[in-house]
Amino acid sequence: MTEYSVSLDNVFHALADPTRRAVIEQLSHGRASVSELAKHHNMALQSFSQHLKVLEDCGLVRTQKVGRVRTCEISENDLARAEHWISQQKKAWNDTFNRLDDYLCRIQTKEGNE
Amino acid sequence: MTEYSVSLDNVFHALADPTRRAVIEQLSHGRASVSELAKHHNMALQSFSQHLKVLEDCGLVRTQKVGRVRTCEISENDLARAEHWISQQKKAWNDTFNRLDDYLCRIQTKEGNE
Repeated sequence: MTEYSVSLDNVFHALADPTRRAVIEQLSHGRASVSELAKHHNMALQSFSQHLKVLEDCGLVRTQKVGRVRTCEISENDLARAEHWISQQKKAWNDTFNRLDDYLCRIQTKEGNE
Repeated sequence: MTEYSVSLDNVFHALADPTRRAVIEQLSHGRASVSELAKHHNMALQSFSQHLKVLEDCGLVRTQKVGRVRTCEISENDLARAEHWISQQKKAWNDTFNRLDDYLCRIQTKEGNE
């Protein structure tokens, strides 16, 4: 298994949880401290920190501690990697449909000429 | 939790596995039978069928049995839903950066005029 594949496993696993997606949605509007993020989630800070750790470990979020405040921000590259994989599949799928469309058009034109 | 959120949980969970992503990649080039798909994966047919079931349950893949052959194809809407969520976050993130750029430009212009 390639490093790229393992990385995608972790990114998609991280996105498969509503709390973690909500954190990404919060951070997509700009960086925020852990306590600012946590106050929107009805759970113990320890549980919330575990969700943040999953996001940090897979590279979706970067955190930095200055003094006593830990600040979080999105690391865009890893989100882009997940999006890139999905759009590649959609492109191949659309190409297949386009080829099918072309084939059906050719068949219909041929039938019309006969 | 909304139905939309549960659906995204399941779609991202399904995509967090390399075998299941490989099946989506295979099917993005067109429909295929279960046995055609399975021959590219070094595992028991029963294990492979469980992966297919995860893809089918979350709506990423549709299957149809005609006679003794079960054929699979991508159900594009659910893949598009996952892509849409990611691109929404990227858009919000880019908007935030653009606002920051505008702000920095305004500050620099103001400083230049003083």
